[in-house]
Amino acid sequence: MKVTIIGASGYTGSELLRLLVNHNEIEKIIPTSRVYKGKPVSSVHENLKNIYGEKFVNPKIKEIDSDVVFTCTPNGKAMEIIPGLLERGIKVIDMSADFRLEKEIYEKVYKLVHKCPELLNKAAYGLPELFRDKIKNSILVANPGCYVTAAVLGIAPLLSEKFKGKFDLNKIVVDAKSGTSGAGAALSNFLHFSEVYENLKPYKTTDHRHRPEIESALKRYSNIDLKVSFTPTLMPIVRGILNNIHVFVNEEDNFEKEKLIEIYEKFYKDEPFIRLTDVPYVKNVVNTNYCDIGIDFDLHGRRILVMSAIDNLIKGASGQAVQNMNLMCGFREKEGLGVVGGHP
Amino acid sequence: MKVTIIGASGYTGSELLRLLVNHNEIEKIIPTSRVYKGKPVSSVHENLKNIYGEKFVNPKIKEIDSDVVFTCTPNGKAMEIIPGLLERGIKVIDMSADFRLEKEIYEKVYKLVHKCPELLNKAAYGLPELFRDKIKNSILVANPGCYVTAAVLGIAPLLSEKFKGKFDLNKIVVDAKSGTSGAGAALSNFLHFSEVYENLKPYKTTDHRHRPEIESALKRYSNIDLKVSFTPTLMPIVRGILNNIHVFVNEEDNFEKEKLIEIYEKFYKDEPFIRLTDVPYVKNVVNTNYCDIGIDFDLHGRRILVMSAIDNLIKGASGQAVQNMNLMCGFREKEGLGVVGGHP
Amino acid sequence: MKVTIIGASGYTGSELLRLLVNHNEIEKIIPTSRVYKGKPVSSVHENLKNIYGEKFVNPKIKEIDSDVVFTCTPNGKAMEIIPGLLERGIKVIDMSADFRLEKEIYEKVYKLVHKCPELLNKAAYGLPELFRDKIKNSILVANPGCYVTAAVLGIAPLLSEKFKGKFDLNKIVVDAKSGTSGAGAALSNFLHFSEVYENLKPYKTTDHRHRPEIESALKRYSNIDLKVSFTPTLMPIVRGILNNIHVFVNEEDNFEKEKLIEIYEKFYKDEPFIRLTDVPYVKNVVNTNYCDIGIDFDLHGRRILVMSAIDNLIKGASGQAVQNMNLMCGFREKEGLGVVGGHP
Amino acid sequence: MKVTIIGASGYTGSELLRLLVNHNEIEKIIPTSRVYKGKPVSSVHENLKNIYGEKFVNPKIKEIDSDVVFTCTPNGKAMEIIPGLLERGIKVIDMSADFRLEKEIYEKVYKLVHKCPELLNKAAYGLPELFRDKIKNSILVANPGCYVTAAVLGIAPLLSEKFKGKFDLNKIVVDAKSGTSGAGAALSNFLHFSEVYENLKPYKTTDHRHRPEIESALKRYSNIDLKVSFTPTLMPIVRGILNNIHVFVNEEDNFEKEKLIEIYEKFYKDEPFIRLTDVPYVKNVVNTNYCDIGIDFDLHGRRILVMSAIDNLIKGASGQAVQNMNLMCGFREKEGLGVVGGHP
Repeated sequence: MKVTIIGASGYTGSELLRLLVNHNEIEKIIPTSRVYKGKPVSSVHENLKNIYGEKFVNPKIKEIDSDVVFTCTPNGKAMEIIPGLLERGIKVIDMSADFRLEKEIYEKVYKLVHKCPELLNKAAYGLPELFRDKIKNSILVANPGCYVTAAVLGIAPLLSEKFKGKFDLNKIVVDAKSGTSGAGAALSNFLHFSEVYENLKPYKTTDHRHRPEIESALKRYSNIDLKVSFTPTLMPIVRGILNNIHVFVNEEDNFEKEKLIEIYEKFYKDEPFIRLTDVPYVKNVVNTNYCDIGIDFDLHGRRILVMSAIDNLIKGASGQAVQNMNLMCGFREKEGLGVVGGHP
Repeated sequence: MKVTIIGASGYTGSELLRLLVNHNEIEKIIPTSRVYKGKPVSSVHENLKNIYGEKFVNPKIKEIDSDVVFTCTPNGKAMEIIPGLLERGIKVIDMSADFRLEKEIYEKVYKLVHKCPELLNKAAYGLPELFRDKIKNSILVANPGCYVTAAVLGIAPLLSEKFKGKFDLNKIVVDAKSGTSGAGAALSNFLHFSEVYENLKPYKTTDHRHRPEIESALKRYSNIDLKVSFTPTLMPIVRGILNNIHVFVNEEDNFEKEKLIEIYEKFYKDEPFIRLTDVPYVKNVVNTNYCDIGIDFDLHGRRILVMSAIDNLIKGASGQAVQNMNLMCGFREKEGLGVVGGHP
Repeated sequence: MKVTIIGASGYTGSELLRLLVNHNEIEKIIPTSRVYKGKPVSSVHENLKNIYGEKFVNPKIKEIDSDVVFTCTPNGKAMEIIPGLLERGIKVIDMSADFRLEKEIYEKVYKLVHKCPELLNKAAYGLPELFRDKIKNSILVANPGCYVTAAVLGIAPLLSEKFKGKFDLNKIVVDAKSGTSGAGAALSNFLHFSEVYENLKPYKTTDHRHRPEIESALKRYSNIDLKVSFTPTLMPIVRGILNNIHVFVNEEDNFEKEKLIEIYEKFYKDEPFIRLTDVPYVKNVVNTNYCDIGIDFDLHGRRILVMSAIDNLIKGASGQAVQNMNLMCGFREKEGLGVVGGHP
Repeated sequence: MKVTIIGASGYTGSELLRLLVNHNEIEKIIPTSRVYKGKPVSSVHENLKNIYGEKFVNPKIKEIDSDVVFTCTPNGKAMEIIPGLLERGIKVIDMSADFRLEKEIYEKVYKLVHKCPELLNKAAYGLPELFRDKIKNSILVANPGCYVTAAVLGIAPLLSEKFKGKFDLNKIVVDAKSGTSGAGAALSNFLHFSEVYENLKPYKTTDHRHRPEIESALKRYSNIDLKVSFTPTLMPIVRGILNNIHVFVNEEDNFEKEKLIEIYEKFYKDEPFIRLTDVPYVKNVVNTNYCDIGIDFDLHGRRILVMSAIDNLIKGASGQAVQNMNLMCGFREKEGLGVVGGHP
């Protein structure tokens, strides 16, 4: 099978290449880049030296010859490209936000006019744990945002029937922490090493674009409306997201940690990439496609605490994209995603 | 003036030495240590080489000859030592938790019987911004916990009359992040470099001892009962605490960021060590006695967000102790605390 | 095939497990630990949760039933165990220093009496790039030290005929930099996070035990005596070694960078785990079995500069051990070692 | 006294401001910046919030009214500005390389034509430990490069009479390690957080511009010609330089570590900012004006090892500049430089 990565010079493109060179079903990977056209991929992604010898190309969209295309393009750009790919029978996994939200929400949040709203219904939301069947049958998958993946996987089990009316749907705090790779390869003072090391920096403290996506994905899954209070902080690490999710339960309802864990275990019992753990540490998921989840109950504060950790570039981006491709193409779901994290 | 630091080989002792060697009112600093008795202080705290030439001593309590003593001892140990010091007219600043809480709460939280409960009322709670007058007139000051300092300074302005009834007193989330120095110099796998770097590790996720201290300090200040939901996460940095504090306002009340900032500015207008800033970054307070505070309002989540940052060893421990000493002894409040943080 | 890892609770044991769970020729891995006997391996190595479900065992040596044993024991301990294993026809890869040196050098450097010197000749020195044939035919392999691997791979090409007499064999500087994982999981103040972060710490500045091993390995390979000046510095990272190797050429001889690179390329042309690169960065080899090597010529200082980078736990320990096992057992040399490093 | 900092928005400007706001002889500091003209300094250097309230200005050179000017401008720019300042009787401390080298060397290394070579002789080389008297009597001081400061202070004691002919003057290796702040605030992929963290990156491996400056400064001091082999590596820390200096002694000469230390102690015995220590750690000098130096002798390799550590922004730049200003203006040499480093 042949795949093309549109925009392969950035960090999600890099991670897709890293995963796909060891994927048994892929014969050929075509990396595109306008800026680096003609240069060896390994001159930009030096980790691939002696492993992947191709050069960046810059084909026109209609010249792309592939079974699957990953679009690692800026928001707003993907929706210009994708219709043409789908018309030619190419399956698409979009890493941007263009197909993740309803038209109205998208246009409000991203301040762009959607150019192919008729495709929004056809796009599956690419979180396999919640939307596996739809993904399997789709030709277009909207790969979720990184914070969103960790938050939604942490909250979803609480939206089942047995929790109904037991916690405050409007006061869910997601206090999110992310490494710098989530912000990509583009240079900025915010990401300059001397400004990040030994530092903790909250940013977009009440208006991050992943907040509406969390609510939208959970609504899509459960048909429940909830309000998430989302604040991210930049961490002085490269990879990893940790979301501490605080959920307030009603006065009359009590929970026990063990029972909560059981519920989560049941919910995720057949999932290959979810691990329930006492307290999730970012390091245990780095370089893997796992989402590690820990649950606690705070009797004093009457609060369920869910902690979820992922590698933002893998389960939060490229690993999940490969998982989606595997589902769309009928491959083994774990194919290419067997890398084990290290200790230390 | 002469001061003794009991337990000067640890990190709070180290930081006291660092601050006091440049303090214009201090003539002599006596550092005690059982383990390092007879060894040069600069063999343990190499930063002090050529600056501070004394050796550790290990006097009996009744031999201590000083105007002020700082007790950097484990919880439970300070209360054995302090009565004897006070009797001899020595002022004491206790860095442990022994005099921070009411008897009942202390005994429950620390699982110890208090040995001199009669002194608890005499002890001032050493947060100058809220209890300056009491501190000035005290011979015993309980120096606050590090997380507590940042949390209480962030929340206190919300407890004034004008906020009464406007937010949910029982659903205050303090999502706390701390560097490793707060956990001290004692070795543990949890603090081994290979286990901390590139990692984020929540710990004591619902039962950290600073939670009751936050509530107790705020009650002491305002006579208001509130419930704090506290979860700390260990950060891969050495110094610094960042508390993201999430406070839910009632449905009918709206706030504006600018108004909130004004209220905080008014509240702290004469404070030498509080800085209001758009978004506080840990790096700006490291090596200083400042607490930087940022405030935001989240209209969607109906949430006030307060972010407070300190250097856990300075405003969160030894700097605040020096500030307390200055108040107790009638010195200039900022004496010895003028160090400016760096950029970068 | 069955393998046993003696001492599987440390970092080299951890890394062996990580590599072997994905090794296609291994059916069963038996992890031993005296301290953690009976506990799940994933309670110590949390990265293995849901991946490897075994518990630590603590068998007597004569009860060990395996085709291959990896001994991750302290220096001096391996030589007590290994003869009994070899007698029973078990192949052994020793991660300690016990079989890396000649008897006299070993006893002087490690201040221990060797207990089975008769085995020293039978042991292959486990650096496949230089001793592949001997390894293939051995039942005992001494896995090289981490700094040694990077240094020897960097220097060896200079010992060929064409360089004879052209550089100063007695003034080879190896200025080595290593992450903390090379020092293992044992706690120490030297490795306490607060003491390592934001710090650079030279150590064992003229008497590190890997210095004689570098000289011995190069002598074994080339029969040339040389003197290495070795100084290591602890870096505030977890994984990775970078050796800057400075070699002074004679007054009358000039080299060109391009020519030197050609010589290295020729020397390593069929090696699966050596990559020649302009300037090696540690990050490109982390999590992989590669040794990246860069070469430069300094006309002013009349100096060849060789820079070699490895992941100290993989090519510097467990990855190389798996490579050796593959050779000893007739497996594909790269089996189990195909992990690709990430960017970033 | 009034001082102007030309180019105060960068890191050396920032550090000058940090030091000068606490300098007892300075009444007014005027910060210039073309880019940030009119903006509060604390909007760029947030550490200065509530401490330093001025705004950046952008005066013409002839409008500058100050006793001392620090020029933090790019190489090549300072020499355009400085003649006009000197003419008006203003003392100048130049942070660039424009006045550090002889004309021929400067023009070759920096590939620029020098615009005021007649001033080169008037400029003192601003390393007080070696050129204090000249600095005291100068109106123009060339502030040394950061690597140069650490290297020259490490090597200078070896150039005294008693070492004459005892070591190889042409084979001095300076293996240098630096934090990122030495490369300044300008954005680049090389300094992007995701590319630096967990990484070690050699750069300008045989042609760094500080190499000729090291040789030139030592020649200026001792009239001895020597050849330095210089290779720097970028470290994943913000502040600090560690130079490992390897010096080969002749076959017939032996040294002892203790004797070498004595020589260094004698050489630097009255120096306020030199500390001799067993092994220098970068952390002990960060935030201070100290240069910590350790010495060892390697009998096997016949090598003197000198390790020198500084904070590149303080002793390596702005602190040394303040020290020079103190000398030029007849102030106490340590004024403004009393900050004590922290542990941890």
